[in-house]
Amino acid sequence: MRVVVNKIGEDWIFLFLLGCIMAMLSFLMDFCILHLLEAHNVMYEEAARIHPALQVTTWIVYPIILILFSTYFVHMVAPNAIGSGIPEMKTILRGVILKEYLTFRTLLSKMVGLTTSLGSGLPFGKEGPFVHIASIVATLLSKSISSFRGIYENESRNNEMLAAAAATGVACTFAAPIGGVLFSIEVTATYFAVRNYWRGFFSAACAAILFRLCAIWFEDENTVTAIFRTTLRHEFPFDAAEFLCFAGIGTKDALQWLGGSSVCVAPSKFVFLMRKNKRFSGFLQSYRFIYPLIVTSIITAATCPQSLGQYMGGGITFRRALSDFFANVTWSDKYNEMLTIDEQIIIARWDNPSIWVSLVTYMMFIFLMSAVAITLPVPSGVFIPVFAMGAAFGRLVGEAMYVFFPNGINNGYSIYQVIPAGYAVVGAAALSGAVTRTISTSMIVFEMTGQLSHLLPAVLAVLIANAVANILQPSIYDSIIQIKRLPYLPNLLPNNSSAHRTMAEDIMVKDVKIISHESTTYEDIRSLLSQNEGLRAFPLVENKSKYVNKFSVFKYECLLVM
Amino acid sequence: MRVVVNKIGEDWIFLFLLGCIMAMLSFLMDFCILHLLEAHNVMYEEAARIHPALQVTTWIVYPIILILFSTYFVHMVAPNAIGSGIPEMKTILRGVILKEYLTFRTLLSKMVGLTTSLGSGLPFGKEGPFVHIASIVATLLSKSISSFRGIYENESRNNEMLAAAAATGVACTFAAPIGGVLFSIEVTATYFAVRNYWRGFFSAACAAILFRLCAIWFEDENTVTAIFRTTLRHEFPFDAAEFLCFAGIGTKDALQWLGGSSVCVAPSKFVFLMRKNKRFSGFLQSYRFIYPLIVTSIITAATCPQSLGQYMGGGITFRRALSDFFANVTWSDKYNEMLTIDEQIIIARWDNPSIWVSLVTYMMFIFLMSAVAITLPVPSGVFIPVFAMGAAFGRLVGEAMYVFFPNGINNGYSIYQVIPAGYAVVGAAALSGAVTRTISTSMIVFEMTGQLSHLLPAVLAVLIANAVANILQPSIYDSIIQIKRLPYLPNLLPNNSSAHRTMAEDIMVKDVKIISHESTTYEDIRSLLSQNEGLRAFPLVENKSKYVNKFSVFKYECLLVM
Repeated sequence: MRVVVNKIGEDWIFLFLLGCIMAMLSFLMDFCILHLLEAHNVMYEEAARIHPALQVTTWIVYPIILILFSTYFVHMVAPNAIGSGIPEMKTILRGVILKEYLTFRTLLSKMVGLTTSLGSGLPFGKEGPFVHIASIVATLLSKSISSFRGIYENESRNNEMLAAAAATGVACTFAAPIGGVLFSIEVTATYFAVRNYWRGFFSAACAAILFRLCAIWFEDENTVTAIFRTTLRHEFPFDAAEFLCFAGIGTKDALQWLGGSSVCVAPSKFVFLMRKNKRFSGFLQSYRFIYPLIVTSIITAATCPQSLGQYMGGGITFRRALSDFFANVTWSDKYNEMLTIDEQIIIARWDNPSIWVSLVTYMMFIFLMSAVAITLPVPSGVFIPVFAMGAAFGRLVGEAMYVFFPNGINNGYSIYQVIPAGYAVVGAAALSGAVTRTISTSMIVFEMTGQLSHLLPAVLAVLIANAVANILQPSIYDSIIQIKRLPYLPNLLPNNSSAHRTMAEDIMVKDVKIISHESTTYEDIRSLLSQNEGLRAFPLVENKSKYVNKFSVFKYECLLVM
Repeated sequence: MRVVVNKIGEDWIFLFLLGCIMAMLSFLMDFCILHLLEAHNVMYEEAARIHPALQVTTWIVYPIILILFSTYFVHMVAPNAIGSGIPEMKTILRGVILKEYLTFRTLLSKMVGLTTSLGSGLPFGKEGPFVHIASIVATLLSKSISSFRGIYENESRNNEMLAAAAATGVACTFAAPIGGVLFSIEVTATYFAVRNYWRGFFSAACAAILFRLCAIWFEDENTVTAIFRTTLRHEFPFDAAEFLCFAGIGTKDALQWLGGSSVCVAPSKFVFLMRKNKRFSGFLQSYRFIYPLIVTSIITAATCPQSLGQYMGGGITFRRALSDFFANVTWSDKYNEMLTIDEQIIIARWDNPSIWVSLVTYMMFIFLMSAVAITLPVPSGVFIPVFAMGAAFGRLVGEAMYVFFPNGINNGYSIYQVIPAGYAVVGAAALSGAVTRTISTSMIVFEMTGQLSHLLPAVLAVLIANAVANILQPSIYDSIIQIKRLPYLPNLLPNNSSAHRTMAEDIMVKDVKIISHESTTYEDIRSLLSQNEGLRAFPLVENKSKYVNKFSVFKYECLLVM
């Protein structure tokens, strides 16, 4: 056994196992989530037979129970499981040790919590938490099996494996191995070891392949295909002139994110600040279920098909909504006689009162909902809601294009119809790219849809969205790191060439408060402490005069914290 | 002007310019190459009217003239332009300064030389040289425009820009921005700065978009699409059971490369050794056109449609051959009544005497030819020939699968036909991946064909091909670095976890030959020199006894050279 392991290389066996386990976990969770969502639908429809009021009650109460269960479970087992996990993994991969963050208790807490919170139908994603889950599985695997213990013991090697695990986590969520590897590079690393790229790729490919094979073996899939497979025309996917419009989507998405990011970040900032406030924190401690209860009630009441829900697709799941946005049918063209019944159903779902109202309502609502939902104390990701928002916006622009050019665009040679679904693909890539501040989202979108026809427009839109978003706001993960005050070393002017002209001196504090053995009096210390309440440590030196103005400290607070 | 530049960031303007210039250069060169190739065909057909012998002569002499011109031009202007350029760029990016390698003379030499050598129709690629060209353009741009001079002056920043240029070079060859960035990461870097990824992406996207827009503006393309666009069925691209076969392609491709790599590397090794041999080198110096003349004559005589050429598609270009391999038509199914005329032409081209013979001959021949052609003193890349070889092999396997399962594969639910073109895509990715030892080839293949339907099989095949190839042979670029004895720092056990257990002591030379001031006699030095002819330097120490067995030197020769 040992000989075989040594021959192949324990790393590769480790990565293979990691990929397979993650694929199985991902599939299992999807299976449970799907059944939870279906149960909700069945109960909702059964309740209609008894009384309409009961129907509404079912719609509202079922998610509340699941969210409260998730809150309770996570709180009892391991509160570390709350949130996305990517900000924390970023911190860990830069060398900080977060206690209890990669334990079995956290794994259990995250998995059960995530399944129930996603099963509730609230606007959460599963991709951030899966990066966390994959990292835990990698850590447990290296700790528990003696052949792999070497991985855990060597710090740099352990970090390599954690980076590969991050790629695996993304890959088995979206069946997107290439996008997963790129995403993990962009999100977790500053400097990336290329040999690690191979590890990530291998593990991610194993995970993605097994994940899709599971869908064949246990579900109704016929073969290995993409998750949201599109069937767009690829003979002439778009006219060159449409590039302008795709670039517009990128800019608009970025602006949307900017304008809204305050809305998105503000509530979570609010909650975290409130937690600092002792009275409010004490209130949350004693009645920890009040806040989730209120938030979930509001959201579910609003999405209910009897209320606002009817104006945004009838409270359907993200998966269904994304399929609708990516469906190769022009919604504005509803009187076309060639439409199939499936296509008519899709249009009917969104044509109430009109597709424009539906799409705008959907976008606004997901936006507000996900901003609030992110503050709930349950495991949750932000990627899929943002992705759906982007797709909705893209679909909106695409439909508008169709209305402006109902007869297609004439490029001098021939006339081609606008494909609104292509705009949806580009919009999804651009908005999720702007929010996570990555380019790999374009790749993830292609792997999810299985079509590359809109490669160049999507790359263009993502680049523009990133550039615009970069000017004003850090990425969602960096924002969360700042809000949670995780001990994280920030990038120094990361995307600017002026970094090459910045000297160490420029970012140091010259006026350092010093306490000295010889000359500092009790009075000095008192005034020092009263004047500098924010400082948590003072350097203690022997001779003050020796150090004044020769002693500097990095400006960044996080360095002080560390 | 200066304010605007500072506002946007000079880097981004620089990268934008770089992308645009490269796209234009690439398009211009493609245009010239295409016309050179067409001129060859026209002359060949015109000559047929006069005399068949003249026809054969035209076929053979035309490439010889071009290759000889290329040899002469490159030799006169800048011999640094010979070869691929990727090995040299790897060396430069690790900090070695190669004199005269990034000058305008080299650019001119490389561009003219490459255009003529590719125009001759010999099995060269344009992707390696384009990485070199992009690097030169980046260097010249930063040197010549005063706003960008800061880039050139700061070494690490200059390296960042060179890495971005490598990505741009690949992107504008294949219109593959994502694959280009990944390829440049894998090929050039050991540790990769993530902020560089953005630069590469931006520049590569500019280049790819403009490159394809040029095709619309100046050629007959209707819109922005992939270069070798495939139209494979994507409802059910392949059955899960076919995974086994795809994995087989990976293994087989890697073995083919291994078995053949000796053949492929041996001739160039031979030539470089011969150059060391003074008499042969003197012969080459005096008659430098003899070797290219002989090699080109043999190759063109063999590819001539009157000789062996008829058994391998009739001496068609790579571009045509690749389109044939990726065409969505089953060659074995030649009596199908649904075939279009275009499809019948493709089958007729390869069905002489049978598709099996044609494909095997084509593969073998490209293999031998490219091994010999690589030793010619002209600018040349190796990627496209390898790519075509892989596609031919994949097509072979695919056609064989069709013959074994003429009625399609029954997966329990329904019956689906085998798509041989899908196998060609997977084979191309796997073989080029094994040769360059990268995974990004899978991405480049998708971007070239514009279809993602075979994503997971291609990733699987590439991974297997890489793993098998890794065991025995370094990548083609590392082989060339070793053959050319470039001063390159090798990876220490790059893909093995044992690197974490290797101490500095383990790779050092303990028994160092020392000369000391005090105790070394003239006799000692004489014997030292005669016994150690290979050594080029001896440490000079004061007191010998102090250093013996306490003094170590790194084993790797390149460190001594540096």
